[in-house]
Amino acid sequence: MLIAIPLFDGMTTLDAVGPYEVLVRLPDTEVVFVGPEKRAYPQEFPGITLEATATLDEMTAPDIVVVPGGPPEAVGPAAQAGVLPAWLAKVHPQTTYTASVCTGSILLAAAGLIQGLDGTTHWAGKGILRQMGCNPIQQRVVDHGDSHRILMGAGISSGIDMALTLAARLKGDDIAQGIQLALEYDPQPPFDAGHPSKAPKAVYERVRVELKAVE
Amino acid sequence: MLIAIPLFDGMTTLDAVGPYEVLVRLPDTEVVFVGPEKRAYPQEFPGITLEATATLDEMTAPDIVVVPGGPPEAVGPAAQAGVLPAWLAKVHPQTTYTASVCTGSILLAAAGLIQGLDGTTHWAGKGILRQMGCNPIQQRVVDHGDSHRILMGAGISSGIDMALTLAARLKGDDIAQGIQLALEYDPQPPFDAGHPSKAPKAVYERVRVELKAVE
Repeated sequence: MLIAIPLFDGMTTLDAVGPYEVLVRLPDTEVVFVGPEKRAYPQEFPGITLEATATLDEMTAPDIVVVPGGPPEAVGPAAQAGVLPAWLAKVHPQTTYTASVCTGSILLAAAGLIQGLDGTTHWAGKGILRQMGCNPIQQRVVDHGDSHRILMGAGISSGIDMALTLAARLKGDDIAQGIQLALEYDPQPPFDAGHPSKAPKAVYERVRVELKAVE
Repeated sequence: MLIAIPLFDGMTTLDAVGPYEVLVRLPDTEVVFVGPEKRAYPQEFPGITLEATATLDEMTAPDIVVVPGGPPEAVGPAAQAGVLPAWLAKVHPQTTYTASVCTGSILLAAAGLIQGLDGTTHWAGKGILRQMGCNPIQQRVVDHGDSHRILMGAGISSGIDMALTLAARLKGDDIAQGIQLALEYDPQPPFDAGHPSKAPKAVYERVRVELKAVE
């Protein structure tokens, strides 16, 4: 099974690495980072790059695609009109699943794959997804596996939950549970502030401005 | 504030990237991946590398150090006798915090920093930590901040919880909560199998063999 994770400049690292760390543990599976070019892609924040070892053109028939997201500028009009959505539109008809994490959903929408569907994305990007014809709902993982072979995760860290869901769909619950155990994914955040409905009001008001949220 | 994350061959990617994604969002902070040499470090699984942009020798006075872990072979006798523990022993006296994720704790132990303390590590590595003179307890994050400036996380994904704890200690709860919200870290794993005490027995028995657990 061949899993492709497309890279692009300014993307959010954990959007890709969370699912990678889950999916690379699936039996008989290869995970490949792909990009418009074979090169290192600068990320949202300095200090780290991720490297594509194959081009989008070379990756003609992935079984699974997981599209990471990024801040507004990384998934804006230029990215939406770029080569990645065109590639997604081309490969999706043959995938078992085409998935997104965070605002990667915006690139699925740019590829025309999720119009008219319920979906999810980073809470700060829900308004953009709505403008593009997908209906954001309050759910961390949205699975259209049986109908549209589309799977979507909410913001950044949700990629781990999304990928465990995907692992279970592909290889069964016991394999997914084994990966969760191997990752010791027994989350115990020191605060319960991970969603606008839970964060202190003042924290939410500050962060929504920082993130230029469109809700 | 200068945060150094040491890299080494065969390490587990999420051990480093989870904390990176939290800590890089702290105000007035730079996160730098460091290594024995400035090069790309192959990780536990294929398809990804992380690149050190500074050498350990160049990084003489980090404020914070976060040591990732890896499977037994990556943190075994060769790594324990290598340059990283020696560097940790040298820089720790001047750090605000020296932290570990997963079996990064074994490298802290090799540096002589945690003998006689309660600690934590990946559940599959607890026996090794015990052999090295640290007392593993059933806790996802162990904070010796006030006494020894040591902070330890359990397996792999716990680095996110550990780093949020660290963020709060360094910059206050509201900054840490804002980062949790920005990462939409409102975990909802599809299963509750992330710890040996919770996973189905058969899953646990399979994974402990796969991971060569020393409990």
